Amino acid sequence: MPLPFTHLISTKQLSRPDAEAILRVADDMEKIRKSGKGDLLHGKILAALFYEPSTRTRMSFETAMIRLGGDVLTAEGIQFSSLYKGETIEDTMQMVSQYADIIAMRHPAQGSADLAIKTSKVPFINAGDGPGQHPTQALLDLYTIQKECGKIDDLKIAMVGDLRYGRTVHSLSFLLGLFKNVKFTLVAPKELTMPEKVTSFFDEKGIKYDQVDDIREGMDCDVMYMTRVQQERFTDKSEYERLKLKYVLEAKLLKGKKVAVMHPLPRVGEIKEDVDALPNAAYFRQAGNGVPIRMALLAMLLKKA
Amino acid sequence: MPLPFTHLISTKQLSRPDAEAILRVADDMEKIRKSGKGDLLHGKILAALFYEPSTRTRMSFETAMIRLGGDVLTAEGIQFSSLYKGETIEDTMQMVSQYADIIAMRHPAQGSADLAIKTSKVPFINAGDGPGQHPTQALLDLYTIQKECGKIDDLKIAMVGDLRYGRTVHSLSFLLGLFKNVKFTLVAPKELTMPEKVTSFFDEKGIKYDQVDDIREGMDCDVMYMTRVQQERFTDKSEYERLKLKYVLEAKLLKGKKVAVMHPLPRVGEIKEDVDALPNAAYFRQAGNGVPIRMALLAMLLKKA
Amino acid sequence: MPLPFTHLISTKQLSRPDAEAILRVADDMEKIRKSGKGDLLHGKILAALFYEPSTRTRMSFETAMIRLGGDVLTAEGIQFSSLYKGETIEDTMQMVSQYADIIAMRHPAQGSADLAIKTSKVPFINAGDGPGQHPTQALLDLYTIQKECGKIDDLKIAMVGDLRYGRTVHSLSFLLGLFKNVKFTLVAPKELTMPEKVTSFFDEKGIKYDQVDDIREGMDCDVMYMTRVQQERFTDKSEYERLKLKYVLEAKLLKGKKVAVMHPLPRVGEIKEDVDALPNAAYFRQAGNGVPIRMALLAMLLKKA
Repeated sequence: MPLPFTHLISTKQLSRPDAEAILRVADDMEKIRKSGKGDLLHGKILAALFYEPSTRTRMSFETAMIRLGGDVLTAEGIQFSSLYKGETIEDTMQMVSQYADIIAMRHPAQGSADLAIKTSKVPFINAGDGPGQHPTQALLDLYTIQKECGKIDDLKIAMVGDLRYGRTVHSLSFLLGLFKNVKFTLVAPKELTMPEKVTSFFDEKGIKYDQVDDIREGMDCDVMYMTRVQQERFTDKSEYERLKLKYVLEAKLLKGKKVAVMHPLPRVGEIKEDVDALPNAAYFRQAGNGVPIRMALLAMLLKKA
Repeated sequence: MPLPFTHLISTKQLSRPDAEAILRVADDMEKIRKSGKGDLLHGKILAALFYEPSTRTRMSFETAMIRLGGDVLTAEGIQFSSLYKGETIEDTMQMVSQYADIIAMRHPAQGSADLAIKTSKVPFINAGDGPGQHPTQALLDLYTIQKECGKIDDLKIAMVGDLRYGRTVHSLSFLLGLFKNVKFTLVAPKELTMPEKVTSFFDEKGIKYDQVDDIREGMDCDVMYMTRVQQERFTDKSEYERLKLKYVLEAKLLKGKKVAVMHPLPRVGEIKEDVDALPNAAYFRQAGNGVPIRMALLAMLLKKA
Repeated sequence: MPLPFTHLISTKQLSRPDAEAILRVADDMEKIRKSGKGDLLHGKILAALFYEPSTRTRMSFETAMIRLGGDVLTAEGIQFSSLYKGETIEDTMQMVSQYADIIAMRHPAQGSADLAIKTSKVPFINAGDGPGQHPTQALLDLYTIQKECGKIDDLKIAMVGDLRYGRTVHSLSFLLGLFKNVKFTLVAPKELTMPEKVTSFFDEKGIKYDQVDDIREGMDCDVMYMTRVQQERFTDKSEYERLKLKYVLEAKLLKGKKVAVMHPLPRVGEIKEDVDALPNAAYFRQAGNGVPIRMALLAMLLKKA
């Protein structure tokens, strides 16, 4: 099934059938990935334009393109380059469209992806535009949930930590809203609760959610999505230390639980290393799931899947 | 026809038959480019050594190599690396020659390309050496003129803006001097007129040129080559503002005109966005023409075309 | 013969049969290298993670992977990236293992390679961990000695310059200690003599060595391994200048000598350019030998040779 759009800017573009189609193609992509590489995108070039460095996301996109037999042009840390000086994003896209067959762009400014698609002559994927959207992260999160739990409908999802500023939990919430009977347990200190744009979306769609501040209340969910509590959000350092400690997940808390633990990574202490060996630890598998999801998107936007 | 040289340092190396051969091969390369990729340079490695960042030129070279089935080693912003510290360019070339089959180098110091070919064991292409030469830009400009106008002989070319310091207009002037009956209209403020090295070349070769300061006098040419007026050349800021405004090309100026508008890019205001939709706007096509021209040069210097 | 280890951290892991097997495979790799590229590692991805820039070593690894038909993910200067901030090396390896089939890492901190292999799911090669180990350099040095002299047993090796702080001469000494009847002439100022960890190793193994301070005493060896005398080791600048001049190799010193001159590069004056044309000058060939050695290691660790 072809996607009903040329460019992927936001998860808000996606219908449930779109999301399901992407997940289905991602499953097929796993086979190609395991074989080393295929030739579906032979002769196609991905331009990975990272105005803001993000080695993790960039490597995931590049791996996806390589595994499909395509080639990659890389520009990371474009702020050091002439590309950055004086030229509008619209002009840069005109130029890069002459070289590449598809573009993935990370940019620090919200809205930059919308500018980019004004002139891009080739399919464009938003790889994060500042505090804006990062749809491939949300899709790989969704794919991970499906793989870990075998389904998405009827699940209980706990989200833990900084729900106020965490871009990933917002995008994922909107995406999960496409599915049936998903319930949320939102675990956050009162300073970092889920913003109104998400809770009002839940209310509108009749999605059930609890707001709590004790991590143990998330333990009986199907998925626990951990996020980093960011020190820079706090003026009172002792307050930060108190909250940070409150949201440290360790092996003993998971004893006898089936919950799949996810995290967008990097973690900086909120999941102890002793969790890594447990079957619950889904976060490294989650990072790996970025490859088949991005393979699926590259292939589908290039009309090859 | 093989080129009668191993390394490309300057447009001054080129005869008219050389330039025509490169343009002819570039035409063949368009077909390979459109097919995705060929295998003419399978097993060949290009080292793209950018001591000075230039994402635009680097991506164009890399695209050319990939479309020909070759591979690329990239080093951009070498100033951050040990390669830069202490080692002479001659030693670096000895070393890189052990890895790559062909080298493209951008370096901030004029004359660095001449040092490089002292020791390079493989074909070398100057991708810009400071205020010196940038021959692949001049060749893609020439190719664009041929594609836009169907010929090069007997054309009227307007060059507009900063003709004093603009490296590209100098190189292109020398290259156009190889053709018959090309006439120039040089549009520049008196502070930024074409330097004597170019005008004396015109005089010597009996090439006709006018020097004017009103952009409207360039409108009846076949080609209008726009350049950026650079603020840093002016001590009097109001003088800069006056001149900058004088050389802004907008759609209404082009009404009923056939002139092909070119620009080496990036532009920073001297061509208004309303020009982009006109058939006259050749500047993005021009950027794209860098790919087949560099494909031609890579293939010819590696004796594969 | 498969190597009896998954990761290469240090030359100390290597037995004589291991080292000989690597050198033998490197010889086979020369043929593939000369043919342009093979397909032994088709579908395999190398992640070249250079936390500390080292364009030379990175390009050598990437060339090796490309010549074997594999693909490369590059991250150089990771200190500018989010990968560097907050995340442990162990977590980074978990993540990169999801993308790549083999990892080569350069890192400024000694011991970082030992941390990396705690979690890497794929073969790992230490490409230099600060003042620690750099085993691929020692192996390419060994390979160069064999190619220049036709054998390794029974050779006389002079090591010249900064023997105290030079990482390469230490690693190479341990590796040569696996062979029979290798004798050393250690040419160094008293301030920069070989450290006790190496001389006691020589004593233990019954390896003969002389310690001298005149470069001419190394001239009748089979190999002269030059190193850079580093200015920053001296508090007395005039002392540095005196020693630096003492260890400048020039063509006239090599008149009638057969000694093969090696250097890990970059050189900064300790070998004059007039040596470059002599058959003795092995140092650029040595740099080139890094490619087949790294091809051999990549292929062997991936169980393809």
